[in-house]
Amino acid sequence: MKELLIIGGSDAGISAALRAREVDPSWRVRLVVADGFPNYSICGLPFYLSGETSRWESLAHRTRSEIEDHGVELLLETIAERIDPTGHFVHAREPTGVIRDIAYDRLIIATGAVPAKPPIRGLETPSVYVLHTMADSFAVHEHLTSRSPKSAIIVGAGYIGLEMADALCHRRLEVTVFDIGTTVLQTVDPELGRLVQGELERHDVKVCIGAPIEAIEQGGHELAVRDHEGVRARADMVLVATGVRPSVELAKTAGLELGERGALRVNRAMLSNVLDVYAAGDCVETHHRLVEAPTYLPLGTTAHKQGRVAGENAVGGGALFAGSLGTQVVKVFDLVIGRTGFRDDDARRYGFEPRTVETKAWDHKAYYPGATELRVRVTGDRRTGRLLGAQLLGSYGAEVSKRLDVFATAIFHGMQVDAVEQLDLSYTPPLSSPWDPVQTSCMEWARTPLEGTA
Amino acid sequence: MKELLIIGGSDAGISAALRAREVDPSWRVRLVVADGFPNYSICGLPFYLSGETSRWESLAHRTRSEIEDHGVELLLETIAERIDPTGHFVHAREPTGVIRDIAYDRLIIATGAVPAKPPIRGLETPSVYVLHTMADSFAVHEHLTSRSPKSAIIVGAGYIGLEMADALCHRRLEVTVFDIGTTVLQTVDPELGRLVQGELERHDVKVCIGAPIEAIEQGGHELAVRDHEGVRARADMVLVATGVRPSVELAKTAGLELGERGALRVNRAMLSNVLDVYAAGDCVETHHRLVEAPTYLPLGTTAHKQGRVAGENAVGGGALFAGSLGTQVVKVFDLVIGRTGFRDDDARRYGFEPRTVETKAWDHKAYYPGATELRVRVTGDRRTGRLLGAQLLGSYGAEVSKRLDVFATAIFHGMQVDAVEQLDLSYTPPLSSPWDPVQTSCMEWARTPLEGTA
Repeated sequence: MKELLIIGGSDAGISAALRAREVDPSWRVRLVVADGFPNYSICGLPFYLSGETSRWESLAHRTRSEIEDHGVELLLETIAERIDPTGHFVHAREPTGVIRDIAYDRLIIATGAVPAKPPIRGLETPSVYVLHTMADSFAVHEHLTSRSPKSAIIVGAGYIGLEMADALCHRRLEVTVFDIGTTVLQTVDPELGRLVQGELERHDVKVCIGAPIEAIEQGGHELAVRDHEGVRARADMVLVATGVRPSVELAKTAGLELGERGALRVNRAMLSNVLDVYAAGDCVETHHRLVEAPTYLPLGTTAHKQGRVAGENAVGGGALFAGSLGTQVVKVFDLVIGRTGFRDDDARRYGFEPRTVETKAWDHKAYYPGATELRVRVTGDRRTGRLLGAQLLGSYGAEVSKRLDVFATAIFHGMQVDAVEQLDLSYTPPLSSPWDPVQTSCMEWARTPLEGTA
Repeated sequence: MKELLIIGGSDAGISAALRAREVDPSWRVRLVVADGFPNYSICGLPFYLSGETSRWESLAHRTRSEIEDHGVELLLETIAERIDPTGHFVHAREPTGVIRDIAYDRLIIATGAVPAKPPIRGLETPSVYVLHTMADSFAVHEHLTSRSPKSAIIVGAGYIGLEMADALCHRRLEVTVFDIGTTVLQTVDPELGRLVQGELERHDVKVCIGAPIEAIEQGGHELAVRDHEGVRARADMVLVATGVRPSVELAKTAGLELGERGALRVNRAMLSNVLDVYAAGDCVETHHRLVEAPTYLPLGTTAHKQGRVAGENAVGGGALFAGSLGTQVVKVFDLVIGRTGFRDDDARRYGFEPRTVETKAWDHKAYYPGATELRVRVTGDRRTGRLLGAQLLGSYGAEVSKRLDVFATAIFHGMQVDAVEQLDLSYTPPLSSPWDPVQTSCMEWARTPLEGTA
C-alpha cells in the first residue's frame, strides 16, 4: 500500500488528507499532529474567549472520529523532528517520548505559521499571552474565568487583535489596543481604518496608534506597557497579536527552498523542490492570481484550497491551485470590513497604475426599513481599466462579506471595472438596489475623471 | 440639436435618458411619461402598502428635479399614441388633450409590461385590484386605510403575490393566497416552493394551490372567489397578481417585429428592426447569456441595464447588452429565496443534460450564535460540467441574495461547477465557513455520482 504522510493537523493538513482519501482510497493516509486538537477552527478562538461560543469542542470543523471515518489515521501529540527526503521517512517523537521513523511515498508539509514575536521586552512575563494554539487559548480562558481580570491590553490592531478587543469587551473588560501603525487594521486603507477606530471607541475601547511598545513589565498586581516615553497603560493582562511568520524549520531539514517572506517555495501543484514533498497552507508562498507571482498571504481559506490541491496531487492527481486574491473579512462589533485583491500600494509594486475611488451607498433601498450605509473602495488600473481590488465596510447584516465575494469572483475572472455593471445581480428592495453597490461603485470609478484622483 | 425621444418613464426609460445625457450632452433628451410618476420603484409598492414605507414619495429612485438636473426634459401625463417612423415623429396627447407631434432623430421605446389578465370573470368588480401603476397602488392604499378591510384574497403566488401576502399580514389582514400551480413561487423548484409555503402558513396565510379560480363575485359586503366546485373563499378585497405581458401596442404602430412571448425583437445593441428605433425593458425580448438566445425575462435590473445600453447607443455609442441570467430574489416574511440561471426544465429546453443537487449548509460557523440553515440547489450540465444555475433559500440576514450573486457572477463567466471551489471568497466565523456554502454546494454536485440523480 502506498503511504501518504502529512505533517500538520490544521486546515491545510486535514484538507489534504481528506482529499487524498477521496481521490484514491487505496492510499494509506497518516497525519502527524503536534497537539491533540486536529482540525480546530483557529479563527474561532476569539468567539470562545468572548463567551459567545460556550464549548471549545464546538470549534472543531470535524471531530476526530469524523476524520478517522474517512480513513485518515491521526498520530496525535506527535512531533515531527526531522525529514529524511532521501530515505523517504520522517523522524517523529511520540507522546511517550519514543522516536520512530515514519516512512512515506509522498509527504505533505502543512506546518502552518507561528506568531511573529515583536521586539518587545517582557513577552515572557506571566499574564502576557500570544494567541495561536488551542493551548494558548486555554491559558487565556483560564485567566479570564478564574482570575476575573478587569482590564486588558492588546498589542496589535490587525484582524485577531480587533476580534479580541471585541471579545474582551463582550466579557466587560476595559480594553486598550496598541498598534505601531497610523491607523488600526492596516490591511485596509486609512479611510476605512479610521471608521473602524471610531467603532472601537464607540464601544469604549481605548485605541493608541503610532505607539511602538518597547516593554511589558510587572508593576504590582498589574502589567505596565511602556514605550520610549514611559508607561503608556496598565492592565491585568496583555495579549500580543502582531502577525505570523511561516513555520519552516522542519521543512529546512528536508532541503526545501524558501521564497517570499521566508515561506516554502512551491509551484501551483503545491510541489516543493524536493522529490515527493508537497507543502500547503500558512507555511508556503501563495500564488497571487492577479499577477501570477508568489506572495505570502496566510489565510485559512487559502490553506484549505492549497491542502486540497496538495492532497489530490500527492496521490497522483493533476490539480493546480488557482491562486489567491487575499480576500479577507472581519467583524468588529457591529461593523464588517473586508478586502479582496490589491490596494494602491500593492498594485504599484507590481507595475500597475492604480487609482482608488470611494463610494457611499445604501445596502438596500432607503425606503425599506433598516437601510445602512456601505463604503466601497474600488481599485482599478488607469491604463487597462482592469479591476484590481475592492474594500468594503458596512454594518453586520448588510451583506458586506458576500458583496466582497462578488468582487472577488469578478477579479478572479479578470473583469474590467466598467464591465461590472453588466453582471446580472439580484434585487429586491429589502436587500439591494436595481444597481447593487458593487456596481454603482464601479460605475463611479469609471465616471471619475482621471485627473481627479491620485 | 439632435433629438432623442424616449417613451416610458420607468426603469428602462429613465436609465436610457440619463445615460444618453452622460455620453453626449449635446443631444436634447425628452421623455414621455404616461402618468405623473417618473422613475418610481414599482418593486417598492408592496412595502408602501404594508406600511413599512410610510411615504409613497420615497419610492422614487430619483425626484423629478434630480432627473431634470441631468438635462432630461420630462413630458408628464402625456400619452404616446402613434409612432411615424418614416417621418420620425410621435403623435402624443398632452394632459390638456391637445395632440402634438414630437420629432426625433432617435427613439427609444420603453413602454414596459402590463398585467396579464387571467381568464377570471368579475375582475372589474369593485374591491378587486391589479397592482401595476402608482394609481393602482393609491387605490389599494385608499381601500386599506379608509375602509379597514379585515381580509384579502391574493390570486397568484409569484413574487408580487407573496410580497403582498407578507405586506397585508403586516397590516394584520387575514390573507388567502390562490395559485393555479402545484406549489407557490413556481420560479423555483417545488422543494423550495414547499418551504416557502411553510413560511406563509407559519404566518397564518392560507395557501390554496392547484386552484384555478374561475370567477370573483360580490356576495353581500364581501367578495367571493369561486372555482369549478363553488365558492372557495371570501374576503373584503381581492388582489390579482398573475404576471405580466409586454406592452407592445404602440411599437406595433411603428412596425417593430415581435419575438419571444410577443415582446419586441431587438439585438444586443437594443436596436429594433426599424430605423433609428431602439427598445428596452419589460417590453422587449431579453438576450439570455447562457444560451446567447432571446427569452422573455421582465426584471427591473435588466430594464436598467438595457435602458443604459439603448441610451448610450441612441446617441452614437457602441454598447452591447451582456445578457441576463434571470437572477431574481424575493423576501417572504423571514425567508429570502432567489435563483439565477437555469433550472432543469429550462436547461433541457436548450439541449443541456442538466442535473440539480440540493445541499444544506449553515450560513456561518455553527459555533457562532445565530447560524441558520441555507438550502442551495445547484444545476449543472452532466456532459460538460458547466454551471447552469443556482437556487437559494435561507433566512433574511443570512446573505442569501449576495451568495446568489456570487453564483450569478460565476455563471456570467461560464464557470464549471467544479471550479467554483477555487474562488477566493471571504471567511470569518460570524459570516461564513472556510468553504462558503456557494462552494460546498458545488463540491457536493461534483461529488454526487451521475447515476444517483435524474
